[in-house]
Amino acid sequence: MKQKALQTASGILLTDQYQLTMAQLYFRMGLHEKNAQFDHFYRSNPDYGIHKAGFCVNAGLGSLLDWLDDAVFGEEELQFLRSQKSSNGDPLFAEDFLNWLKNDFSTKAINLYAMPEGRVVHPNVPIHVVEGPLAVGQIVETGLLNTVNYQTLIATKASRMKQAGRGQPLLEFGLRRGQGLGAIQGTRAALIGGADSSSNVGASHILGFTPKGTHAHSMVQVFMGLGEGELAAFQAYADIYPDDCLLLVDTIDTLESGVPNAIKVFEKLKRKGHQPIGIRLDSGDLAHLSILAAKMLNDAGFPEVSIVLSNNLDELVIWQIVTQIQEEAERYGVDPNSLIKRLVYGVGTSLITSQGDPALDGVYKLVAIQEKAEWIPTLKISENIDKVLNPGNKRVWRVYDDRGKATADLVSLFDEDVHTQDPLILRHPTMERKQRALQASQVSRLEKLLIPVIRDGEVVCEKPSIEEMRVKRDQDIDALDPGVRRLMNPHIYHVSLSQNLWDLKQLLIKKARS
Amino acid sequence: MKQKALQTASGILLTDQYQLTMAQLYFRMGLHEKNAQFDHFYRSNPDYGIHKAGFCVNAGLGSLLDWLDDAVFGEEELQFLRSQKSSNGDPLFAEDFLNWLKNDFSTKAINLYAMPEGRVVHPNVPIHVVEGPLAVGQIVETGLLNTVNYQTLIATKASRMKQAGRGQPLLEFGLRRGQGLGAIQGTRAALIGGADSSSNVGASHILGFTPKGTHAHSMVQVFMGLGEGELAAFQAYADIYPDDCLLLVDTIDTLESGVPNAIKVFEKLKRKGHQPIGIRLDSGDLAHLSILAAKMLNDAGFPEVSIVLSNNLDELVIWQIVTQIQEEAERYGVDPNSLIKRLVYGVGTSLITSQGDPALDGVYKLVAIQEKAEWIPTLKISENIDKVLNPGNKRVWRVYDDRGKATADLVSLFDEDVHTQDPLILRHPTMERKQRALQASQVSRLEKLLIPVIRDGEVVCEKPSIEEMRVKRDQDIDALDPGVRRLMNPHIYHVSLSQNLWDLKQLLIKKARS
Repeated sequence: MKQKALQTASGILLTDQYQLTMAQLYFRMGLHEKNAQFDHFYRSNPDYGIHKAGFCVNAGLGSLLDWLDDAVFGEEELQFLRSQKSSNGDPLFAEDFLNWLKNDFSTKAINLYAMPEGRVVHPNVPIHVVEGPLAVGQIVETGLLNTVNYQTLIATKASRMKQAGRGQPLLEFGLRRGQGLGAIQGTRAALIGGADSSSNVGASHILGFTPKGTHAHSMVQVFMGLGEGELAAFQAYADIYPDDCLLLVDTIDTLESGVPNAIKVFEKLKRKGHQPIGIRLDSGDLAHLSILAAKMLNDAGFPEVSIVLSNNLDELVIWQIVTQIQEEAERYGVDPNSLIKRLVYGVGTSLITSQGDPALDGVYKLVAIQEKAEWIPTLKISENIDKVLNPGNKRVWRVYDDRGKATADLVSLFDEDVHTQDPLILRHPTMERKQRALQASQVSRLEKLLIPVIRDGEVVCEKPSIEEMRVKRDQDIDALDPGVRRLMNPHIYHVSLSQNLWDLKQLLIKKARS
Repeated sequence: MKQKALQTASGILLTDQYQLTMAQLYFRMGLHEKNAQFDHFYRSNPDYGIHKAGFCVNAGLGSLLDWLDDAVFGEEELQFLRSQKSSNGDPLFAEDFLNWLKNDFSTKAINLYAMPEGRVVHPNVPIHVVEGPLAVGQIVETGLLNTVNYQTLIATKASRMKQAGRGQPLLEFGLRRGQGLGAIQGTRAALIGGADSSSNVGASHILGFTPKGTHAHSMVQVFMGLGEGELAAFQAYADIYPDDCLLLVDTIDTLESGVPNAIKVFEKLKRKGHQPIGIRLDSGDLAHLSILAAKMLNDAGFPEVSIVLSNNLDELVIWQIVTQIQEEAERYGVDPNSLIKRLVYGVGTSLITSQGDPALDGVYKLVAIQEKAEWIPTLKISENIDKVLNPGNKRVWRVYDDRGKATADLVSLFDEDVHTQDPLILRHPTMERKQRALQASQVSRLEKLLIPVIRDGEVVCEKPSIEEMRVKRDQDIDALDPGVRRLMNPHIYHVSLSQNLWDLKQLLIKKARS
């Protein structure tokens, strides 16, 4: 698509048609400016098949704020809506409604509460709460979900890979396999969730990062095609990038050709006073090859250069590589821990697509509507009890136990003071008999998780840097029980309702069913 | 991201860092304007786990042309590259190279051959062939892969869903679950591959389509919250959209509340001379509910209104719905075939993410480089014989047999005339003993698949409409053997090398290994 068209499609028209038909209906009924509240939350942690996440890492809010800021109904947008016809040939959208969109619709009319990016989040807990005119809240639904679902999905995947690699550097290079321009947002999310840097030049630029990358197989092929060899290609690279020399060693044969040629080039660099950066392995048994390559590099006097691994890595593959190195390295006279600490992981497809579970099931639900000055909680019941909404205006608290660990997220009514409740009752969201009672002495801290982000048309929170989000992320992950952090079969983190919210929910269910 | 930032990140900087470091190396070595040829192809059809594709539907070329047209190194891009530092603190990119990017780099310098969008394509067959200055061909690699991999993936998934639904209307509404803005490109691909329309307002607009959608559960919830009920919500909708009345019937209870209320509203519409459009079922056993809903609608005198099904549909779920209706409908006095013909499928997550296999493994490989006036074929060998490139400048032919069915795609050398070869030898790409010999009488047509798209800086092909692409798609799918079209365990379509290409490949492998 041309840039201009893309700009149109990614503005306020980044929405579903039914938001607009509903908005017109609300307009026609005089309901469009009634205050409404919508919760965004996701229903379940990503399940990748043989492994699943025990939590998510929140991402997307910064992009959402940018989108809201740019999203207006201009002439082109209105003209398109004006051109739409109903089945009988009349205009689908009436002029008075279009005038309202033009003159009165503004994303600045909403108040937004949200969890900051980088925070650990859990299923069925509101992450973004939108309060504002019904028609506005409805029209922004799709753009909000489009922006935050995907970024949280990818930040979560990146955090898993970082964890599997024991905190070693993680490079994101999925641009070629992402969903078109979505990969730009994916890069952002990866940087928040666990990647240290990215190969994506444009995304890195706009996010203030330095992109990473050296060369591909094609460079070696060019030299071979012109009658020279891998060594000449490596040497050319070292001549031009003497202080950034990282060589891809598997174009011909990793151990027979690539590593020996890299060592020759590294020796020459060293003699000239430069420090070579490392090698990259992109095929074969990466654990085994990294041990043998490390051995060759060590023997040649390069025990410090990095070994970058790539080729369809995901968290389980990385975990397996680390495990195999621990089992196999000593046999070759290589210290496994030193080797693990010189590894760098390059991840493409699996990270940018969240392979195994390529979508987060985030939803956006009407939970309350204001009638005169009073908020009326709304419910959607369902045959599946897990899908019944938690109604009304709410607050979210993270409950830290006496070890300082996060033990539950507690969803309460907006106006109740959970600090004074002793014992603090944590109700299971759907199962009547499941509940915990925490004595005040067992609770070290109650942290309010939703912060005001937009109020009266102004952004009222700080805009943190990605570096700050990462600090938050690490703190939150540290505060989790190790069982919840596990890559496979994680403990289920408690998400609970306060007694008051539980009571309200039961009352509304009873009312709806009668 | 702000629109301005997005624009920057989606232009020429939609590339990987190593393309730029390699380009500078080529520049420094005087190789950057050497003519090179790159093939884009994918290695394997999507494998969704318990089912897999037997072919793909090609998509993305139109977007690629738009991207190439917009991709230039302007001041911002150059300034960013200028700001990058090598490890020793010096600028990573030298001014002479940046000047070349500024003054001499142009995507118009490449010639492009490609398969048209909508065509059926197969693994290991070049779909896009880029010929031009080495550094330009390298820098555009990532943008090309980013644009075409995803769109082909989604067009393929859409074609499978369309097939499972026996050609009934397919609505795409995955915007909220796609990868951010990638969903815009996903909508385009879905419309090419099998979707009839989309809920995505912006994407529909820029593609010249009318978006589709009616209302969500929230509309019914609003009325309930304000003390009215589902019937009042439906009636309001019918009043405002009397000729476009499609009602979502599962907010409370599909059969007890939703369908009876819809019928009441439909009867009123009918009395006023309007034709109701239909109902949408979004939860529960969709096959069973559609039968019972059809029965109720039939009995009420609405045998013609549509029944739209949604809720985590994919091709297997659609297939199962159709099968179950055939087994179960008659028991309720509903004709299964009439019911199947009034169904409409709404698909979200599974389509926009290609659930089960969320990335196409498309690659872009250097296959030849020009030295003086001569093209030198290049090879990348690999431990995996299936991954050894097909070298050199090539042509692709679709071979139709005496039934008029496509029986193989044949990759030949560029300058060989396969028409005169009798018998025509089709060699398996890697297995020496596997080959077929077709007598001239067994070949009804040899179709050249790659057409010139860009030549001397100009687009030299027609830009087909999406409607025209769909015609091509249907023709190509019709020409496949039914076994290849199968949703599960498809026959493997033959992709073959000509004898001459086979011989060249063997020669180059021997040379590389010696």
